[in-house]
Amino acid sequence: MQPPTLELGRTMAADLAHVAPGSVVTLRGHVHRRRDLATVTFLVLRDRTGLAQVVFEAGAAELPPEETPVEVIGTAAASDKAPSGMEVIDATVNALSDPAETPPFDLWRPQLKVALPTLLDHAPLSWRHLRQRAKWQIGAASLRGFRRALDAQGFTEICTPKLVESATESGANVFPVDYFGKPAFLAQSPQFYKQQLVGAFERVYEVGPVFRAEPHDTARHLAEYVSLDVELGFIRDHRDILDVLHLALEGMLDAVRADAAEAVDRLHLVLPTIPEQIPVIHFTDALAMVGAAPDEPDLAPEHERALSGWARDEFGSDVLAVEGYPLRKRPFYTHPWTRPPQAAGGWSNSFDLLFRGLELVTGGQRLHRYDDYLTAIEQRGESPSSYSAYLEPFRHGMPPHGGFAIGLERWIAQLTNSANLRETTLFPRDLNRLSP
Amino acid sequence: MQPPTLELGRTMAADLAHVAPGSVVTLRGHVHRRRDLATVTFLVLRDRTGLAQVVFEAGAAELPPEETPVEVIGTAAASDKAPSGMEVIDATVNALSDPAETPPFDLWRPQLKVALPTLLDHAPLSWRHLRQRAKWQIGAASLRGFRRALDAQGFTEICTPKLVESATESGANVFPVDYFGKPAFLAQSPQFYKQQLVGAFERVYEVGPVFRAEPHDTARHLAEYVSLDVELGFIRDHRDILDVLHLALEGMLDAVRADAAEAVDRLHLVLPTIPEQIPVIHFTDALAMVGAAPDEPDLAPEHERALSGWARDEFGSDVLAVEGYPLRKRPFYTHPWTRPPQAAGGWSNSFDLLFRGLELVTGGQRLHRYDDYLTAIEQRGESPSSYSAYLEPFRHGMPPHGGFAIGLERWIAQLTNSANLRETTLFPRDLNRLSP
Repeated sequence: MQPPTLELGRTMAADLAHVAPGSVVTLRGHVHRRRDLATVTFLVLRDRTGLAQVVFEAGAAELPPEETPVEVIGTAAASDKAPSGMEVIDATVNALSDPAETPPFDLWRPQLKVALPTLLDHAPLSWRHLRQRAKWQIGAASLRGFRRALDAQGFTEICTPKLVESATESGANVFPVDYFGKPAFLAQSPQFYKQQLVGAFERVYEVGPVFRAEPHDTARHLAEYVSLDVELGFIRDHRDILDVLHLALEGMLDAVRADAAEAVDRLHLVLPTIPEQIPVIHFTDALAMVGAAPDEPDLAPEHERALSGWARDEFGSDVLAVEGYPLRKRPFYTHPWTRPPQAAGGWSNSFDLLFRGLELVTGGQRLHRYDDYLTAIEQRGESPSSYSAYLEPFRHGMPPHGGFAIGLERWIAQLTNSANLRETTLFPRDLNRLSP
Repeated sequence: MQPPTLELGRTMAADLAHVAPGSVVTLRGHVHRRRDLATVTFLVLRDRTGLAQVVFEAGAAELPPEETPVEVIGTAAASDKAPSGMEVIDATVNALSDPAETPPFDLWRPQLKVALPTLLDHAPLSWRHLRQRAKWQIGAASLRGFRRALDAQGFTEICTPKLVESATESGANVFPVDYFGKPAFLAQSPQFYKQQLVGAFERVYEVGPVFRAEPHDTARHLAEYVSLDVELGFIRDHRDILDVLHLALEGMLDAVRADAAEAVDRLHLVLPTIPEQIPVIHFTDALAMVGAAPDEPDLAPEHERALSGWARDEFGSDVLAVEGYPLRKRPFYTHPWTRPPQAAGGWSNSFDLLFRGLELVTGGQRLHRYDDYLTAIEQRGESPSSYSAYLEPFRHGMPPHGGFAIGLERWIAQLTNSANLRETTLFPRDLNRLSP
């Protein structure tokens, strides 16, 4: 194998600018655009790295229709008029498949101005558009940065089952599966498994699908999404988890800057600013700041937006952690508040991370003592016996631990200013959509 | 955050050997073993990096039971008797949770000699055992190496849906899901999606769960497993895919050597040898070599073992690619044979990779012309209209392409000489097992 950008004697579009004028080059890609002018014909070729301009004398070549995959062999020539300063002349074009039918929308236009259902109905084609493609490239770079940051901190990647015997966190919103004639469910999260594996590997992460039978058809909900899950042991409290989250987010942004620079440019994005320390505000202070009643159990979306604005103004930060959410509003495995003043409030060692006005991450410390689980489960009116498989490792010694989960599609959507999560999901699933 | 091996002022077990004697160290981990001798008491602590020995005068300390998470603060001291040459003395031990109950098997013994059902019933505990843990660490390193190798070749990671409208490859062996009252299925592979996305990203990979309602209860079958899927465009034929597979396997082995060296040592593994060129044999030559009838449609397991032995003897290789499988035995999207002699045989541009006697990878070139799909689907007696969503991008220009899929659990099992895939899956799923 040759180096990636010169595979099989191929010149990538992004590398054309660096080729010596007069060199013979072989390009491969799709016909992005054909344009016939009075004296010349342009072929713009699209490959995975970008666009390259090929110029013919008018009538000199029979060019295949747009989207046809082709091989172009020609001579590199400097040109003021080529976007990269270099174009290809004296070229021959070989089609690598049959002539392509005209797509349902113009992929060569700078903007893909189609209604959302059209975009989604033709997803395999709309992802060919340079702006759509750029969104996912930012997502893919983020995944790489996430793993790289955690690998460097001694984390072990895990793969946990998506077919489970019982609902993970509550009986609602699960998809039932016929499992060899027995009832099963699709996992709503890897929560129980990642906690259990802290006992073996201490620090674990998983990138994988999670499933929510979400009856709301909104811009913010999907029935299947990608969750970036982290869990670690031997912590003091949730602030240690916030430190790891900080490293993970920095790693994701570093990778976007390094590996998806072209995509960032194409979308004219301003990447977020995350200060050395993520600003943290206690839930009760957050309620007071937005003028909500002190017994409110949660923050409303407009509160989250106001708090994000404050973090931006006060700390120059695009992220804000709200800690100490009321224990009764968090899952049963949530650890109670342990910082001073300990006695007060019924708070928890948990947090949400607001990112530009939207909740992006939920995290916190979990219970680690077996007896605390028994009490917490009974207090919710449930029977510990229905959690016996989950609880087994807690009987046999589990360290103080906690973790968080980032929703990939929300992250991409907020980074790329996309109004709807469906625009940043390769093949979204919702109440009404199961195809393509 | 401190560097990974010194987080929060902590010394990891594996780093104890490199600490200056006389230093005060803080270790955190589980009590792996307590041992009372006449004059001294040993505490062996286990953390994610290994074991550390702590020594007390007999009766000097009340040690918590095995598996309890603890913090040990003491003084590093050189010792001939400590496995690493360094032990901890003058130590205090603080339990970080309640005393652990005795596990159902001894985690401190060098071998975990329990029956498979016991191992699996208590998976969260059995993964704490050093030998089990080593197996998964080899798997996690392999995933890292796989991605690193492909990232370096310009591949884009993709995340495709696991909830699908229709069976991917055939109607058999799919799990039905109740999707908001409508029928849906769990994806048997990302095959259709990864092909479609070649049109957008050219080179894609995915690591994710796949689901097979597998009615066979054998050591080689799971109902859910992790598939390492690759697909790339602008290829000449399946030999280009084999080159990428070669890079991926080398990357996986490099990462195992670099990141899981301790695990390789613990299991006394001999890592496989893959020569510069993966040996390739044509299907018909393979049949002749093992003495099978020339019209046999597939290789039997004993044939695969014999061929692997031949590759070992002839090329010193632990892998062997068999190419040209009969088209009628491969999925409908398989590309016919194109190498000379082209006319003969009804062969395909596909391959299986045998790894130490077992089929580890299936791959090949796919059809890329829309009309070829129509013909192939009709020849199988099916209607192209039931594939219309899949086929849309083929109407609008798809390059020659192909790919492969590696089963993660099989890879780990073959590397670690594990007889049953269930030993190398964190939480296996099969005909009879849906928990833990």
